[in-house]
Amino acid sequence: MALLHVEHIGIAVADAQRATQLFDLLLGAQPYKEEVVEREGVRTVFYQTGQTKIELLEPTRPDSPIAGYLGKRGPGLHHIAFEVVDIRAEMTRLAAAGFELLSDTPKPGADGKLIVFLHPKTTGGVLVELCQEVILNEL
Amino acid sequence: MALLHVEHIGIAVADAQRATQLFDLLLGAQPYKEEVVEREGVRTVFYQTGQTKIELLEPTRPDSPIAGYLGKRGPGLHHIAFEVVDIRAEMTRLAAAGFELLSDTPKPGADGKLIVFLHPKTTGGVLVELCQEVILNEL
Repeated sequence: MALLHVEHIGIAVADAQRATQLFDLLLGAQPYKEEVVEREGVRTVFYQTGQTKIELLEPTRPDSPIAGYLGKRGPGLHHIAFEVVDIRAEMTRLAAAGFELLSDTPKPGADGKLIVFLHPKTTGGVLVELCQEVILNEL
Repeated sequence: MALLHVEHIGIAVADAQRATQLFDLLLGAQPYKEEVVEREGVRTVFYQTGQTKIELLEPTRPDSPIAGYLGKRGPGLHHIAFEVVDIRAEMTRLAAAGFELLSDTPKPGADGKLIVFLHPKTTGGVLVELCQEVILNEL
């Protein structure tokens, strides 16, 4: 078992509309999707750059984890997400190896995925997400 | 013109040997290369995950930019690098769009690339690298 590839890179932004103008220019591309994930308190904007997506993350409410991150660290790189084939099997493997999972079961995330985060204190300061593509009725 | 794909993600680490043990476990993979870039004051360790590499960055001297980053922000996500076809053309395009380049000309980086960084104050807090594959006698 292993993490397959970098599915996306999450970037915390204060204002998704302004950040989108900036990243349009930077990447020389347009976003292919915007999606609000109310459960996480975020508005997301996705760009496709090769195999890896760039996901801008704007908080939609003050208690959003992204609002907390912006307050503490400012805008910038927030997390990296790795695609996995079997998220539950990877969670078992990583927990046994000493990594701390931020939830006991996978949760539905943006972009039709099952996701889980690993605590950055166990991953060298990097907030790592695992995500698995699922068919809709598995959510 | 555009940035093509995420060539690598740079992660600042205090101790490359310990971080390598951790990332071996996390990724379920082994690094394919270690390389010291004296000019930048870094020891690098590379993993291949799909199209995107994970590059661990340990400072080799106190005045290394990575040492400064670790002192200010601690270990974690440091930069993202995008592959480009023509780095000089992209530098011209991005400078004209208002992005600040950290050098006027591309520099030789790790892994046989020509590279340039964009100032994070002009890229939403994200340290962005452009890199172009080159044949050795172009360095």
